[in-house]
Amino acid sequence: MAARLRDVAERAGVSVKTVSNVVNNHPHVTEATRAKVSAAIEELRYRPNLSARNLKHGRAGFLALAVPAMDSPYFAELAAKVTSEAAAMGFIVLLDATGGDEHAERVVLEGMRSHVIDGVIFSPLALSADEIAGRDDDLPMVLLGERPTPTGYDHIAVDSVAAGRAATEHLLALGRRRVAAIGRETVRGTASERLRGYRQALRAADLAYDPELVVGVPHFERGDGYAAMQQLLALPSPPDAVFCFNDLMAVGAVRACAEAGVRVPEDVAVIGFDGIAETRYANPSISTISPDLTHLARRALEMLVSRIDGDTSPSQEVAVPWTLVARESTTGRAAQT
Amino acid sequence: MAARLRDVAERAGVSVKTVSNVVNNHPHVTEATRAKVSAAIEELRYRPNLSARNLKHGRAGFLALAVPAMDSPYFAELAAKVTSEAAAMGFIVLLDATGGDEHAERVVLEGMRSHVIDGVIFSPLALSADEIAGRDDDLPMVLLGERPTPTGYDHIAVDSVAAGRAATEHLLALGRRRVAAIGRETVRGTASERLRGYRQALRAADLAYDPELVVGVPHFERGDGYAAMQQLLALPSPPDAVFCFNDLMAVGAVRACAEAGVRVPEDVAVIGFDGIAETRYANPSISTISPDLTHLARRALEMLVSRIDGDTSPSQEVAVPWTLVARESTTGRAAQT
Repeated sequence: MAARLRDVAERAGVSVKTVSNVVNNHPHVTEATRAKVSAAIEELRYRPNLSARNLKHGRAGFLALAVPAMDSPYFAELAAKVTSEAAAMGFIVLLDATGGDEHAERVVLEGMRSHVIDGVIFSPLALSADEIAGRDDDLPMVLLGERPTPTGYDHIAVDSVAAGRAATEHLLALGRRRVAAIGRETVRGTASERLRGYRQALRAADLAYDPELVVGVPHFERGDGYAAMQQLLALPSPPDAVFCFNDLMAVGAVRACAEAGVRVPEDVAVIGFDGIAETRYANPSISTISPDLTHLARRALEMLVSRIDGDTSPSQEVAVPWTLVARESTTGRAAQT
Repeated sequence: MAARLRDVAERAGVSVKTVSNVVNNHPHVTEATRAKVSAAIEELRYRPNLSARNLKHGRAGFLALAVPAMDSPYFAELAAKVTSEAAAMGFIVLLDATGGDEHAERVVLEGMRSHVIDGVIFSPLALSADEIAGRDDDLPMVLLGERPTPTGYDHIAVDSVAAGRAATEHLLALGRRRVAAIGRETVRGTASERLRGYRQALRAADLAYDPELVVGVPHFERGDGYAAMQQLLALPSPPDAVFCFNDLMAVGAVRACAEAGVRVPEDVAVIGFDGIAETRYANPSISTISPDLTHLARRALEMLVSRIDGDTSPSQEVAVPWTLVARESTTGRAAQT
């Protein structure tokens, strides 16, 4: 049976009125209360009565989330988070997997679906900032990710330079000195910030940048990390640590080590990036930079709904908080999270 | 730069006319040619000029795929496959993650988006066959998955009884005699077919069904397999093999064994179900029942597009081919796939 408002109130230990305030995005709700109620909403899978609420606000009740790939666990986990947070705010989310394809991304920009959709959260891959800025459509849009973005749109992303630097510093702090990086940019520019952070950390530790230790990949998938790690292990002097620019490549790198009889982390420490669920149950469990996806989803939705409701204030630039989760692949110990 | 028709033709080694026939779903194309062209289309990320084609056919050019969860790798990988196959047929797919929630599933049935969508592929979880049959909307719909489905709709699914039996027989053929199962149905009915196949295999091997070895779980996630495996390992006489009803639970089960110092497969052999990419790069790599997702996606789309184009012939029941992929978690050897 579907959960009702009062089930949520009971679970969260607050009044029905408070739940209603959270669901209706009322401004005078403390962050702690909001978190409690959101947790209860998620747990009970509560869905507010969408049609009644949206009718009142003159909304269609649908948002779009357009990302490059849905079979990327990072985007899949992000989509699930956006969907559940949006439900708590009274919206259903339609997902659009563009494949990072120019044509499909243009369809997003052109707002072909704007007669049924109130707004879009868009993570572009193929389109340039200029092309995005030049769109001929006024459907409210919030941009995600580290691609160069045009001014005039709310934008939310992890500071990948700082996070990439922290990942590399974590490996250096373990005493490693030949630290490799997997994921140098080849065609697209997504990796340049993480590489910049990597170089900053090396410089701060007075270590030279060795191009031999920095491997480019065609994609950011498990097989790419696997092949890159094999290439690194074949070097006359292989690395003693590797920073993979995403978790999937870290999974592939760990597998390549296992097949080669190279111990992780004793011989090679490995850290990834994204905080996907797969890293937690891997053997060994994999250290990672974990962005706060709940924060990301909530802030992106808040900004978007505010624009839908007519907010015309200057666009915002929001940094997503992240944590470094140290696990067996670097420290040899499982994390408590 | 976006790929053109002639790039696809060159890559596939066929004429431009042949590519055009495949893209336009022309009936006189051999399966081999179709496969070659589809591979080239996928590789080059080619997208046909949708608007021109769909205008001709009087279509919106959009399909919906509604599944319970987008952060389930199985559904995410399925969604990616449906998206790329649909692109080759001239459609953009919008994904709808229902959360297995009744309200969200009813929105799918009610065709709230039918003025922009030509048809829907729907994998229901919460709704009954009766409720689906009683929908008041004529948007073309194809059903996926093993839930009881109403007559009158095309339906496509893996034969989970046969596949569950094969998974169990694989463990028995290794000489294992205390074969456990993780994923007994608790609230929802998705697991009953796999359990039936498990029981059939035990019976055929003259082994008694031991309820102690069959563990129920609240969800089908990594953490559920992890907890269930811990419970099995704590038995006075633990199992020597485990059939997990999906791959995520197998990942969790393998992790629980690693933490407990139990060797996989020497002490406990583990097999999953779904064929998700994560199983291939796990340590050890995980044996699984792998449905042919390309076949599933293509057949579902063909049936749907045929209904969109006015086909009123009796509904079809289609079984998805699957293979048992034996990997290190059962045989101790990596598969060649």
